[in-house]
Amino acid sequence: MQLLKDRIIKDGKVFPGNVLKVDSFLNHQMDVSLFCEMGKEFRRRFENEQVTKILTIEASGIGIACLAAMYFDVPVVFAKKTQTKNIAGDVYTSRVESFTHGRIYDIIVSKEFLHKEDRVLLIDDFLANGSALLGLASLVRDAGATLVGAGIAVEKGFQTGGKIVRDTGLRVESLAIVSSMGEDGSISFA
Amino acid sequence: MQLLKDRIIKDGKVFPGNVLKVDSFLNHQMDVSLFCEMGKEFRRRFENEQVTKILTIEASGIGIACLAAMYFDVPVVFAKKTQTKNIAGDVYTSRVESFTHGRIYDIIVSKEFLHKEDRVLLIDDFLANGSALLGLASLVRDAGATLVGAGIAVEKGFQTGGKIVRDTGLRVESLAIVSSMGEDGSISFA
Repeated sequence: MQLLKDRIIKDGKVFPGNVLKVDSFLNHQMDVSLFCEMGKEFRRRFENEQVTKILTIEASGIGIACLAAMYFDVPVVFAKKTQTKNIAGDVYTSRVESFTHGRIYDIIVSKEFLHKEDRVLLIDDFLANGSALLGLASLVRDAGATLVGAGIAVEKGFQTGGKIVRDTGLRVESLAIVSSMGEDGSISFA
Repeated sequence: MQLLKDRIIKDGKVFPGNVLKVDSFLNHQMDVSLFCEMGKEFRRRFENEQVTKILTIEASGIGIACLAAMYFDVPVVFAKKTQTKNIAGDVYTSRVESFTHGRIYDIIVSKEFLHKEDRVLLIDDFLANGSALLGLASLVRDAGATLVGAGIAVEKGFQTGGKIVRDTGLRVESLAIVSSMGEDGSISFA
């Protein structure tokens, strides 16, 4: 999606260790009009999938998921991160490893909000190692629902997550796939 | 706002200890079309305030804030919760006490995204003890920005937060103010 790529070039910042900061428009400050355009694009790409629910993960996936949901006319459910060992109540749960934050946590979704009749689209802001996406997919599988695919804003194409997730058979649509970042701050797309 | 009150009556669940669960449409599963109507209503109430930015707090404020931002045509910034003692970088920070989760955490916003020229509207899903709202207000004050008010989805009118926050001079607009909840599951509004 050219609009997003242009924005990454304009406002994205490259830091040592292949860190790409897009927090001025994507995951701290959020440009909602850009999110609308991204939502329309997700809708276009998954138009024939009869999506009934969008599933995302707190916190930075929520904004993108909500704007996308407007164009699909479906509710959003967000998986909650928890480090609580004893999870109360009727929930689906899965384990996610965050390399950014160097920790492992459980994600949970109430069983009330994922049903076997659902056709679920996953939405998230970033795809890097793929752990979050695999965790979300596992929740959908546990619910017996149909997973129609994943819509991602920014995929780090030089990390392994995209391949790992696609190898499971999941359709992944990333609006911008970063293929490399230079020490001079340059950013290239696949 | 009648639409929200009707929805709380229909789908809200009352639990012992004055707990009101609205997670089927507000803060776990999110009814985005309801959020659109709430966003329009916030816009109507703060129409003449020349809002330049909406500030919310992760995670459940983000969806409501993003849909509201669409009608104000401004970006959203969300404060991040952290239990990290050493906060790196140039951030505004404040302390918030969560009674629901029984813990104290710091909230942070990058200094890049709040400026003294900003006219900031706070948005959150719940107002109970007021701690989150006071924390957000403190970040805005630290930035030297103008705080135009707070838009809340559900205020627990029988808790002290609403009075505490309004007594600081902040304009608070709550779309539904719950005045009491009965042991039979009944819910009354102010």
